[in-house]
Amino acid sequence: MIFVEKLLNASRQNNSLVCIGLDPDLKLIPYGLNIFDFNKAIIDSTNDLVCAYKLNFAFYETLGVEGFDVLKRTVDYIPNDILTIGDAKRGDIGNTAKAYADAIFSKLNFDATTVNPYLGFDSIEPFIQYKDRGVFILCRTSNPGSDDFQSLSYQNGSQNSYLFDLVATKASRWDKYGNIGLVIGATYPQELNTIRERFPSMPFLIPGIGAQGGDLEKVVLYGVDANGEKAIINSSRQIIFASKGSGFASAARKVATELRDRINYYRKKPI
Amino acid sequence: MIFVEKLLNASRQNNSLVCIGLDPDLKLIPYGLNIFDFNKAIIDSTNDLVCAYKLNFAFYETLGVEGFDVLKRTVDYIPNDILTIGDAKRGDIGNTAKAYADAIFSKLNFDATTVNPYLGFDSIEPFIQYKDRGVFILCRTSNPGSDDFQSLSYQNGSQNSYLFDLVATKASRWDKYGNIGLVIGATYPQELNTIRERFPSMPFLIPGIGAQGGDLEKVVLYGVDANGEKAIINSSRQIIFASKGSGFASAARKVATELRDRINYYRKKPI
Repeated sequence: MIFVEKLLNASRQNNSLVCIGLDPDLKLIPYGLNIFDFNKAIIDSTNDLVCAYKLNFAFYETLGVEGFDVLKRTVDYIPNDILTIGDAKRGDIGNTAKAYADAIFSKLNFDATTVNPYLGFDSIEPFIQYKDRGVFILCRTSNPGSDDFQSLSYQNGSQNSYLFDLVATKASRWDKYGNIGLVIGATYPQELNTIRERFPSMPFLIPGIGAQGGDLEKVVLYGVDANGEKAIINSSRQIIFASKGSGFASAARKVATELRDRINYYRKKPI
Repeated sequence: MIFVEKLLNASRQNNSLVCIGLDPDLKLIPYGLNIFDFNKAIIDSTNDLVCAYKLNFAFYETLGVEGFDVLKRTVDYIPNDILTIGDAKRGDIGNTAKAYADAIFSKLNFDATTVNPYLGFDSIEPFIQYKDRGVFILCRTSNPGSDDFQSLSYQNGSQNSYLFDLVATKASRWDKYGNIGLVIGATYPQELNTIRERFPSMPFLIPGIGAQGGDLEKVVLYGVDANGEKAIINSSRQIIFASKGSGFASAARKVATELRDRINYYRKKPI
């Protein structure tokens, strides 16, 4: 099944735009638990509430040799009807990008990944060649440093435009297989609005609510497509570390349920 | 010892600006050899000819679970007086960048790494906090897609400037510990010249000679500092795959020697 279908099926089946970021931190998980078992408990307790799980590679690479193994076992454990996103933000020249794409899509078998646009088309092309997988290009990120370069303003014909706009424009031109999406931070709702208007049917991966403070109502209002879909709203720490005690999995379920319901409330609210 | 000192010591001791990229490819190494033994043979045969080894993470991640182990054993095997560069091109938000920096500098113990600037300062700061390690920020990359965004032109006061210029300018402003360098592709000698004039003492990591076709004479002339140093000129495939037969290590030595000598010829050639 192709990536966009899998995304729509998952979000319809669970009536949810929630993505949970499985970004474990040994210092924050209950004492004595290993990371795979932590992930497993969170997945068991939330997989009927989400459309996707996102695994940021950094939190696995920092585990050393066992990291890749935990990453692989976690992806394999996620039920098949839920989208898996390998949040690796890779960006390298052609032959190297090919090796990364192979690692993420063939070896680890993720449904989708994130890539950095700074190196341009040949750094992204090997990923989009996996036509049934999704490729989310970083466009406007949620962090404070996002303004250092992404909001660089330039003269585009008679108009003023920004680097992140150019990234969105090129991403859409490169999208010959319909498997490209954009990463747009919840902390920039105005930009989210502008880019959604220009690209009404692209899937958006939206981090930055919760711990990073994005405004959920605006994010939903501006992020979804005309059917109220194709926005994947990620929360990591607020859900998985909702409690540090033995009840962490049911605490995570509670927070994920509330988030799903708040998003659905805004989705259905008449404008 | 801090990173810049280690670089200068290594390049003086071996009278070399050559960096060998240890980017193994199972399809190109002699049949039956494992990747660690391949790397070991290349290192044994070339470590008196180089100032640095650069390991691109993609070629290890694609090995799956054993990749991290081979990466770690290879870095550990490189003699202590030679600089090790973990070419990971990471770029992620603050708390995630911290996990990547920990993986590369603490767990794997690389002397230096490469980072992607698209996410801005907070994505780079956790790396530069390792004050004795080097952080090479991607500025102008060697690949064809480099023009998609890096050469975006904008109005900078009364002058015309480019995104890669802005990256170099900000990198230099962020360089409070003297451990930031720039990655500038050999395929853009004119840009290399301009940036060296503006930043006379920053270390440059220069990929893109050899297989990618950069002009070596210009690269040396424009890339080095006033003392003919602080340029790290990388070659990967042309050296490590110089021969695919059992004599691969001595073939690599031959090509590395020629490269070192050609670079030194241009370094000493009066302008």
